[in-house]
Amino acid sequence: MAYDAPIDEIEFSLKAVAGLDQLAGLPGLEAYDDDLVRPILEEAAKLARDILAPLNPVGDSQGARLGDDGVISPDGFKAAYAAFRDAGWMGIAAPEVWGGQGLPRTLALGVMEMFHSANMAFGLCPMLSYGAIEALQAHGTDDQKRIYLPKLVAGEWTGTMNLTEPQAGSDVGALSTKAVPDADGSYAITGQKIYITWGDHDLTDNIIHLVLARLPGAPAGSRGISLFLVPKFLVNDDGSLGARNGVRCIGLEKKIGIHASPTCVMEYTGAKGWLIGEANKGLACMFTMMNSARLNVGLEGVAVGEAAYQAAFNFAQERKQGKVDGVAGPAPILHHADVRRTLITMRARVAAARAICHACGVSADLAHASDVPSVRAAAKAREDLLTPIAKAWSTDMGVDVASLGVQVHGGMGFMNETLAAQLYRDARIAPIYEGTNGIQAIDLVGRKLAGNGGASMRAMLAEVDDTVRMARTTNDPQFVQLAERLWAGSKALGEATDWMLTAMKAEEQDKALAGATAYLALAGDVIGGHLLARAALAARSGEANFRARQMALAGFFAETSLASAPGRVPGIIEGGERFLANSRALFGIG
Amino acid sequence: MAYDAPIDEIEFSLKAVAGLDQLAGLPGLEAYDDDLVRPILEEAAKLARDILAPLNPVGDSQGARLGDDGVISPDGFKAAYAAFRDAGWMGIAAPEVWGGQGLPRTLALGVMEMFHSANMAFGLCPMLSYGAIEALQAHGTDDQKRIYLPKLVAGEWTGTMNLTEPQAGSDVGALSTKAVPDADGSYAITGQKIYITWGDHDLTDNIIHLVLARLPGAPAGSRGISLFLVPKFLVNDDGSLGARNGVRCIGLEKKIGIHASPTCVMEYTGAKGWLIGEANKGLACMFTMMNSARLNVGLEGVAVGEAAYQAAFNFAQERKQGKVDGVAGPAPILHHADVRRTLITMRARVAAARAICHACGVSADLAHASDVPSVRAAAKAREDLLTPIAKAWSTDMGVDVASLGVQVHGGMGFMNETLAAQLYRDARIAPIYEGTNGIQAIDLVGRKLAGNGGASMRAMLAEVDDTVRMARTTNDPQFVQLAERLWAGSKALGEATDWMLTAMKAEEQDKALAGATAYLALAGDVIGGHLLARAALAARSGEANFRARQMALAGFFAETSLASAPGRVPGIIEGGERFLANSRALFGIG
Repeated sequence: MAYDAPIDEIEFSLKAVAGLDQLAGLPGLEAYDDDLVRPILEEAAKLARDILAPLNPVGDSQGARLGDDGVISPDGFKAAYAAFRDAGWMGIAAPEVWGGQGLPRTLALGVMEMFHSANMAFGLCPMLSYGAIEALQAHGTDDQKRIYLPKLVAGEWTGTMNLTEPQAGSDVGALSTKAVPDADGSYAITGQKIYITWGDHDLTDNIIHLVLARLPGAPAGSRGISLFLVPKFLVNDDGSLGARNGVRCIGLEKKIGIHASPTCVMEYTGAKGWLIGEANKGLACMFTMMNSARLNVGLEGVAVGEAAYQAAFNFAQERKQGKVDGVAGPAPILHHADVRRTLITMRARVAAARAICHACGVSADLAHASDVPSVRAAAKAREDLLTPIAKAWSTDMGVDVASLGVQVHGGMGFMNETLAAQLYRDARIAPIYEGTNGIQAIDLVGRKLAGNGGASMRAMLAEVDDTVRMARTTNDPQFVQLAERLWAGSKALGEATDWMLTAMKAEEQDKALAGATAYLALAGDVIGGHLLARAALAARSGEANFRARQMALAGFFAETSLASAPGRVPGIIEGGERFLANSRALFGIG
Repeated sequence: MAYDAPIDEIEFSLKAVAGLDQLAGLPGLEAYDDDLVRPILEEAAKLARDILAPLNPVGDSQGARLGDDGVISPDGFKAAYAAFRDAGWMGIAAPEVWGGQGLPRTLALGVMEMFHSANMAFGLCPMLSYGAIEALQAHGTDDQKRIYLPKLVAGEWTGTMNLTEPQAGSDVGALSTKAVPDADGSYAITGQKIYITWGDHDLTDNIIHLVLARLPGAPAGSRGISLFLVPKFLVNDDGSLGARNGVRCIGLEKKIGIHASPTCVMEYTGAKGWLIGEANKGLACMFTMMNSARLNVGLEGVAVGEAAYQAAFNFAQERKQGKVDGVAGPAPILHHADVRRTLITMRARVAAARAICHACGVSADLAHASDVPSVRAAAKAREDLLTPIAKAWSTDMGVDVASLGVQVHGGMGFMNETLAAQLYRDARIAPIYEGTNGIQAIDLVGRKLAGNGGASMRAMLAEVDDTVRMARTTNDPQFVQLAERLWAGSKALGEATDWMLTAMKAEEQDKALAGATAYLALAGDVIGGHLLARAALAARSGEANFRARQMALAGFFAETSLASAPGRVPGIIEGGERFLANSRALFGIG
């Protein structure tokens, strides 16, 4: 089997680790009930296993193609999308008023992980639509919502995000696409966008593009950008489709991976568009959905890591090499200690990233739905803090774990069509898009730490210290050891945090940012270790093997990633000095 | 420029760090003179830059193809090979008696790094020939040497290694290819070999295959394997080519990377072969060249890391995004602190791996050429110890650094034809072939540590401690800090070493092997840090920027990789416990 969803693990992570139950009964989430989780995950697991996973190699080898009339998806993708749509998966976390199911976003994360694990290239299509739905919900006019949301929520149309231009990537403020007002209240959009995921395709009748562009006379840089809605086909008042709009895909990128996901060059030639939100506030509109988009990408890291783990585990059970005591004949390589180390490394890291993403998701849901203002504020701060970590730590993990998966396969792993190889190729995009992981680290240090004087990180460290106390009071030697390692990690992260705040305050911003990536990695390790410890604590009442597994994962993570935490502080707080002070000798600048 | 060889860095590493000068005047190396190093590196750099590097994308996109009459190399490879051959590069480290230049192997490492950086797929062809030359030198009969060595050393023919079969990879003892004696003293070889690098091609008139096979009635397992020489075309007594032999390439693997290097399925159908060395001692014959083959693969990690660094640095100079104080208009991303951190991380790790490989090479040359038995013995022990570290640490580094290189490129890095993307794909094979890195770790702990009671590792730690003393006595605060970090690393490695030896002695082999990969990683970090410190010490008398650069690289490596060393011991000595004791809960076995 190419992919079999880890339903138990996902359900446990959602409920026992991330605390999904806190969401029951909140306004807007009335439809949610803890008992729904299991059947929903089981239904999604079937689609992932039976339909999406078998298409994954097809999509990889065929790829999306550009025909005369737009992008043609690989064989079987149309039918798979129809199955996805008909089951209502697009609307799982959308409000019931627009035809959605009104369930928590965090539950949707559990579902999306499966789709991404089974077929990451496919999963990107709904992922972008979720973003468009969120943006329209938050900033669309009543008319825009009425016309577009029911179709998007039903999955009858899909959505895209058009930000990047050749000269405007991480620096989105450098974009130059133009929007000229027309007499009828619409705008004529002209310009070229690149790297547009699922920018065109044949899965649905219409595609709704959200496009960043500049109005005439708009201020330079990021304060002069507005957001526009540009449908591929214009929509008549009765909801039927009208004329083709002036937007088309003029090229597809040839990529290392996610071949089935068309990465489009989009050309806008006076395309009819409508302003979303206020003029020149386009970036702010995008920011409202940035957290969730980044969390979704983080989850891709989890998904590809899980898929890589499964592929490696399956291979290690089948592939026989060498002799092992107690096994007759050639032994499956799973019996070799080094292979087992690789597998537990993969598994522990995937579980930690999943827990971080789910924790971030619950905060996002609470921040949105709680009727207690102080709870909302605290949840929002936690969501903001966890988002760059969820995105960057999980996607770096996805790449590393996919690489370990290749390694378990030996020579087979280097063959292009092996699933492990595809995952190694697919995984590599996630640290790049939706804000590179370097941008996430800068966001963590610059906005999420310095923005509130470190309050949200201190609140997180208090959570960690609660876990330390809980683990200590078990009086179980394994938990006590775990507590000490987590405590050491927490102190290390605290020390690095204090240093970062001091450096930012002293306006030694470059010094702080020079350590940002290493700081984010440490934060992910400590928070991941904390959540795995929570998992082990929660599993104490569970079945013996499940309990032992959670303890083994938390313990292994602690003695590798947490035990090394204190020794990583120097690289964060001193490393920058080396290359900032020696930039001329090293890089010929400065 | 796609690749510009770091001649200064390579020369400095060879001479000042690894001590190439120790080889001058040794028997068999009379041709060597320190003054030769620079002109040889400069000549090789031209071939790499002007001929091999421009062909790298061609090879990647065209790949090797299988025609009716064998493998067809990509456009331009024939001419490039001719230039390589005519300049005498194949014979650089071969004895003068066979037409070689009689220079140290370590100097050849300096040259090969350039060829691999410029075009790893190309570099593999001579790399396999070097191995065949070594095996024939060590184990061939006088006739075999007379017939084959001059042609191989001149590069007129190439050599291959045929070990792997579908069921026999890491466990080479499981191979089943048969060798049946003929009346004329030759053997009829029948069987199938897979993953044969440059197993067939159109660059030369003949190809000399070294093939492992079993004689009738040979003992099972690795003690019943013999080595045979099987030419593609039989060779007449006068040296001219005779009939086509019964060996052919019946398939090419489709791989993630190194597309221009044909990875062949070879079919032997009663091919005429000749025994090399003694019957049933084939593995021992292969072992004599295994050290150098593994070191050569380690060097590929260095080479691909260097190429990735250069590509990233070049891109970071050109790509402009965002504003930076002191730079007018959009700034090259090289000015962003986080990008600089990525670049120094890449550079420091490449330099450390290069130093490890060169140090290993000098030991190999000394072990071979020194006329003092005690020097030979010590050098051999050092070579044996460093070989698995050079192979595994450098190739893991190559993958990680290539991935960082992709990251610096942002979206461009994910485009299949970007050099950074090719390097990410190419790099992934090196941790796999010539003994997976897991096998290297097992070799390090099982043979290289336990095999001599830890003596060679203790000798290495004494070297490290000498460096600590040298750095301390400078009284320069930067060196004193470096010394303290190296000292802490040395103690950590010593502690882990003692534990490993105790575990192996107590026959808790599984526990030891469960930590082997993490132990090797720690050993590489400490030895790499030691050699970078040596480099910084040696550079004190050099030009100001060069001196500052070496200190920055050593200092950065120390505060990242060395400072974390003590905290990594628990993951080595305790990690195994977790998954060995919980194998049922984790993996359903045990």
